[in-house]
Amino acid sequence: MKFESSFPIWDKLNTDQQARILGSLASHRVKKGAVIHNGSMDCTGLLLVKSGQLRVYILSEEGREITLYRLFELDMCLFSASCMLRSIQFDVTIAAEKDTEFWVVPTEVYKSILEESAPAANYTNELMASRFSDVMWLMEQIMWKSLDRRVAAFLLEEASIEGTDQLKITHETIASHLGSHREVITRMLRYFQNEGMVRLSRGAIEIADADKLEELRDS
Amino acid sequence: MKFESSFPIWDKLNTDQQARILGSLASHRVKKGAVIHNGSMDCTGLLLVKSGQLRVYILSEEGREITLYRLFELDMCLFSASCMLRSIQFDVTIAAEKDTEFWVVPTEVYKSILEESAPAANYTNELMASRFSDVMWLMEQIMWKSLDRRVAAFLLEEASIEGTDQLKITHETIASHLGSHREVITRMLRYFQNEGMVRLSRGAIEIADADKLEELRDS
Repeated sequence: MKFESSFPIWDKLNTDQQARILGSLASHRVKKGAVIHNGSMDCTGLLLVKSGQLRVYILSEEGREITLYRLFELDMCLFSASCMLRSIQFDVTIAAEKDTEFWVVPTEVYKSILEESAPAANYTNELMASRFSDVMWLMEQIMWKSLDRRVAAFLLEEASIEGTDQLKITHETIASHLGSHREVITRMLRYFQNEGMVRLSRGAIEIADADKLEELRDS
Repeated sequence: MKFESSFPIWDKLNTDQQARILGSLASHRVKKGAVIHNGSMDCTGLLLVKSGQLRVYILSEEGREITLYRLFELDMCLFSASCMLRSIQFDVTIAAEKDTEFWVVPTEVYKSILEESAPAANYTNELMASRFSDVMWLMEQIMWKSLDRRVAAFLLEEASIEGTDQLKITHETIASHLGSHREVITRMLRYFQNEGMVRLSRGAIEIADADKLEELRDS
């Protein structure tokens, strides 16, 4: 897989801009669990996922975390270059959820291209608007959807991403994804089990009745 | 006050772009309470506040609302032109909190300028990043700050905006700004009164001890 065919606006850049990107592009490979960007501590650059899966989340002072969104193959991440935009005043952490390969365009190179290229700047606008929409959706979930529906939605999404109904995931992990507490999630999962929607065992959750979970999620 | 001196990147547009804006620019005057943009129902255009005060908020299906941010003199609003960016997938409502005058650049005109002008596209990026940061801050407030601190922060902000310690505001209004319920806010305000931080009367809240409220807010 080549960067040229993976970067959506490649053909709209001039040959000088293309050369600057190819001359500075770096390719990385990280193991599952690696933290590749950590708040304001670094400004890695614009990131494009080649393969694998990244999770973007925020951390409270007390160490609680909430997942903002995930990045899959060919997704781009702007916030690893957040120092590029002086108006971005918040910090995210990016970690690999699977072994992941990605490209990085250095912040200074991308910034200089943004300043001269309307297509690049507009593409960046669309990227940001799309992430903004993700976060607005999440905020509405937190504010207005009750937790039972959010847990149901989370389990169904995990099953779809992993391609299995046997989820190897702890209650603690679900709690931190949803900005909740382990005890609360455990109670909810037991309720789900009593309703026949899941089967719980040590370190695993099996989806027993996806239709019923979907019904709850969409209720 | 002229649009030319109020629009930050005016000098970076060419004369043709400037003429297209001036030829299509509309000026509006609305009364306090007017709703000037309502979700996906309309796509007014890029909005620049001349005087007054606007509130941007989201509404749940059940009619609960939460304030995302406010717009004051010379602030610009991108989301009244959200149809311009196809990646914006959420709806906001914009209402006047005071009698307000504002300019509108029609969506199609601004969009055509964005497509050819890197400075305009980058300026739009900064605007969006700044609003995104507001919303991230708010989400962190909701997730991680306890309500007492949020109510204290809200009262202090109101007093600062209105330039008075005598706030004419109902508990219902505070509740909807903070995505909470009237009963909860009333209880919290009574607690504040018992602590000597505010004095409550019919339809009004007086800030009695701003230092103590600030201390709570920053705790």
